[in-house]
Amino acid sequence: MSITVDDIIIGGGSFVIIGGPCAVENREQFLSAARYVKESGANILRGSAYKPRTSPYSFQGIEEEGLKYIYEAKMETGLPTICEVLDANLIEKTAKYVDILQIGARNMQNFPLLRAVGKSGKPVILKRGIAATIDEWLNAAEYIRSEGNYNVILCERGIRTYETSTRNTLDISAVPVIKSRSDMPIIVDPSHAAGVREYVAPLSKAAVAAGADGLMIEVHPNPEKALSDGHQSLNPHEFKTLCSDIKKLANFMGFGLA
Amino acid sequence: MSITVDDIIIGGGSFVIIGGPCAVENREQFLSAARYVKESGANILRGSAYKPRTSPYSFQGIEEEGLKYIYEAKMETGLPTICEVLDANLIEKTAKYVDILQIGARNMQNFPLLRAVGKSGKPVILKRGIAATIDEWLNAAEYIRSEGNYNVILCERGIRTYETSTRNTLDISAVPVIKSRSDMPIIVDPSHAAGVREYVAPLSKAAVAAGADGLMIEVHPNPEKALSDGHQSLNPHEFKTLCSDIKKLANFMGFGLA
Amino acid sequence: MSITVDDIIIGGGSFVIIGGPCAVENREQFLSAARYVKESGANILRGSAYKPRTSPYSFQGIEEEGLKYIYEAKMETGLPTICEVLDANLIEKTAKYVDILQIGARNMQNFPLLRAVGKSGKPVILKRGIAATIDEWLNAAEYIRSEGNYNVILCERGIRTYETSTRNTLDISAVPVIKSRSDMPIIVDPSHAAGVREYVAPLSKAAVAAGADGLMIEVHPNPEKALSDGHQSLNPHEFKTLCSDIKKLANFMGFGLA
Amino acid sequence: MSITVDDIIIGGGSFVIIGGPCAVENREQFLSAARYVKESGANILRGSAYKPRTSPYSFQGIEEEGLKYIYEAKMETGLPTICEVLDANLIEKTAKYVDILQIGARNMQNFPLLRAVGKSGKPVILKRGIAATIDEWLNAAEYIRSEGNYNVILCERGIRTYETSTRNTLDISAVPVIKSRSDMPIIVDPSHAAGVREYVAPLSKAAVAAGADGLMIEVHPNPEKALSDGHQSLNPHEFKTLCSDIKKLANFMGFGLA
Repeated sequence: MSITVDDIIIGGGSFVIIGGPCAVENREQFLSAARYVKESGANILRGSAYKPRTSPYSFQGIEEEGLKYIYEAKMETGLPTICEVLDANLIEKTAKYVDILQIGARNMQNFPLLRAVGKSGKPVILKRGIAATIDEWLNAAEYIRSEGNYNVILCERGIRTYETSTRNTLDISAVPVIKSRSDMPIIVDPSHAAGVREYVAPLSKAAVAAGADGLMIEVHPNPEKALSDGHQSLNPHEFKTLCSDIKKLANFMGFGLA
Repeated sequence: MSITVDDIIIGGGSFVIIGGPCAVENREQFLSAARYVKESGANILRGSAYKPRTSPYSFQGIEEEGLKYIYEAKMETGLPTICEVLDANLIEKTAKYVDILQIGARNMQNFPLLRAVGKSGKPVILKRGIAATIDEWLNAAEYIRSEGNYNVILCERGIRTYETSTRNTLDISAVPVIKSRSDMPIIVDPSHAAGVREYVAPLSKAAVAAGADGLMIEVHPNPEKALSDGHQSLNPHEFKTLCSDIKKLANFMGFGLA
Repeated sequence: MSITVDDIIIGGGSFVIIGGPCAVENREQFLSAARYVKESGANILRGSAYKPRTSPYSFQGIEEEGLKYIYEAKMETGLPTICEVLDANLIEKTAKYVDILQIGARNMQNFPLLRAVGKSGKPVILKRGIAATIDEWLNAAEYIRSEGNYNVILCERGIRTYETSTRNTLDISAVPVIKSRSDMPIIVDPSHAAGVREYVAPLSKAAVAAGADGLMIEVHPNPEKALSDGHQSLNPHEFKTLCSDIKKLANFMGFGLA
Repeated sequence: MSITVDDIIIGGGSFVIIGGPCAVENREQFLSAARYVKESGANILRGSAYKPRTSPYSFQGIEEEGLKYIYEAKMETGLPTICEVLDANLIEKTAKYVDILQIGARNMQNFPLLRAVGKSGKPVILKRGIAATIDEWLNAAEYIRSEGNYNVILCERGIRTYETSTRNTLDISAVPVIKSRSDMPIIVDPSHAAGVREYVAPLSKAAVAAGADGLMIEVHPNPEKALSDGHQSLNPHEFKTLCSDIKKLANFMGFGLA
């Protein structure tokens, strides 16, 4: 099964690269990131205007202002866009500005939100919960699909284990497990899984080789100054090199490019 | 710090027992359960009208009808009541019928919902997420408190580990850890932690001895016929015996009774 | 089923307290600890002469010299003694000096060692492996029992999870699970589970209330100067107070004292 | 750093494939497996004569008889060989028959055994413990190296998590983490990680792409009749196809072949 957004195909034998910063911080930062993503040959632009943060006192996103910059970036680069939604009440507004709605790991079992994005009809990226089983994840997708919305893309982003060398433990096996149980596309987010910049490239390549349909990678114009997740973001040069390597590997593995 | 609901005190040296079925299934089942809870000497009545379920095709609760039965049970027994809320849009309605709002494990980091129960001013039971660290849990509580609502009760209900003999692994250490880091009351839910009826009594006693401020225990008039969680629910006789044992132990440990 | 060592009964309705330092460091430290253990009313003395340490460059124990101090302490105080064995070749020697052999968590599936302590006929404390399921633990005990040695005491000492507030997560549910599946006595080691001194007392009480047959608690004459595990050791005063509290609670719970 | 066994180089830019059955079951089974391994172009032959099993009543290996068949297979095929050692007392005998000693996951912190294989001077494959951190694993390797034996190959074989779709969770991130902290070669065992035959190929490819130095894959002449681990063993045809694919991918990734 494949999902088409503008002229980009996700799943069904094509390989997609999604890039962008964790958060939309301001107009300059986001448009700059968007240009790097485009120039690197990635296919879709990510960036969140609303950030779910562990503490209520951390940076929470620039909200509607951010949605406007996402839209402006799409207009300039032509790239389809992704933004996380935290609240069913904001789906309608978000859907006006962006192409794909993301459900974050913390909301994987926020069932009213799943039903609401289901009703929206928009393509949805459903991140795996931090300690969700694959069965629970597929059932969460079913909440969206049961509303008639089959445009669901699963995203493995690491699970919580005892190991502390990485932020989470990338469950690379989830790729073949999902392939054997479902026809939904599955992509991998190596940035949140690793939490460490230098591990992003090898994990990206592992995901391609395991058969994932795409990657979502954090890139920031200036990771050292990022308001969130800077330590796991690539800089533009690293991202461009990695995109090139990934495309060659995906091609070798028999994927078409999105 | 203690929280007072009607004439029941939670925290501050008194010990509270919360009982009731997982879900409000129908009028007869819930009123029957409520009478058993009252008769057993427990202090607060629980029951959910909205059920978050892994699959969209499982029983999801009887919704507003259930709220009315909860209210009726309070009127009859005089017990304060608890009901889970899944959706910020339902808080106002739920708050009309019940005394304490519960945030379930799956919603521990549903930040808009946390803010909304914070704004409601109602007492809140905040269950620990299934793989939440204690730091994340305290930060989730802070989302509620940052809205000016300090009536937050933490509830340890087991964490996800590799062990399969129990549904979850009760993290009994969370009791002293919370006591050392916070002044919020902490209660324990041995029913969801164990997932097995016969382990509920020993875990309940362990919680009292570890210093918890209360217990939330599932009891059903007829566990074999329960629509959810029957295998972990006590029957009325077992519940009554356990309440008696808990009160003696809590008294021995120096607690007053709520 | 109960196990008798000298005149101490483990299991079968009596409650036993085992105390002592992590390691035998020198004669003065260990004899001093032994006197405190005796004076506090505990029943069995622990101390290891051989220490399994993560790094080969950490303190590894004082070996045979330590065994002699354990024996001397037994002669002086009359307390039965426990020492860990790491190597089948040292069982015969260790068995001359001490009463109970301990298999540590790292060796729970060291099958030749299990068979060897089985053949020795000595009472054995079998600690649960750091990520062992209860089924694996019972099977490990079976390696000892299959050699004809039924004097096996299980010891829950915390399992590895994602939570970092404690060194390990005490799986208090293991107590009722073992009780339902086996007739072997089960004790709890709150010191290694918590890894933090202030949590040892509440976890000890939880273990009594959950139905454990005993406790193994670290106490050191001067925890600040301990060569290993000082942060989780009680000082003599704390230990004496805790022993007194535990005995009262065990008596309340219906245990006889060992 | 690389390790040379006969004319096979492990690490240092060459890629090695190790194949063979879980256990040496009998002469015919093992020689048959060895011929398939050779014919498929793999580089090293594995097979264990002593099996560590959860239950004392399960098949435990054919012991010395198995060592002789391993030696016979080496003589016939010319392949270097690997066999697990469980007991320091058997190292000398095992070392006469096989080229590389394996320390299994359960013995990763069996420190006397680590020191003993260190003293043997033989190349050692050190499997990661089922819940060992990477730090503990590197420290375990240091026990071997501290005896002057630097011929240590690390083997990632999956860690224990809550997920049950796979036998263990392959921690693919361990590959780049080890590469950043150590110069020891690291190989991956996808068979024990997955526990399911159909996931072995995608996980093998992921390991190559992540930068591992080799793979250890279970193959059995007749997996349905295997005495252990049959469900995760490839049949000879699957193994041959996978070896071919792996070599192409390793070549694409810039590895030389061992």
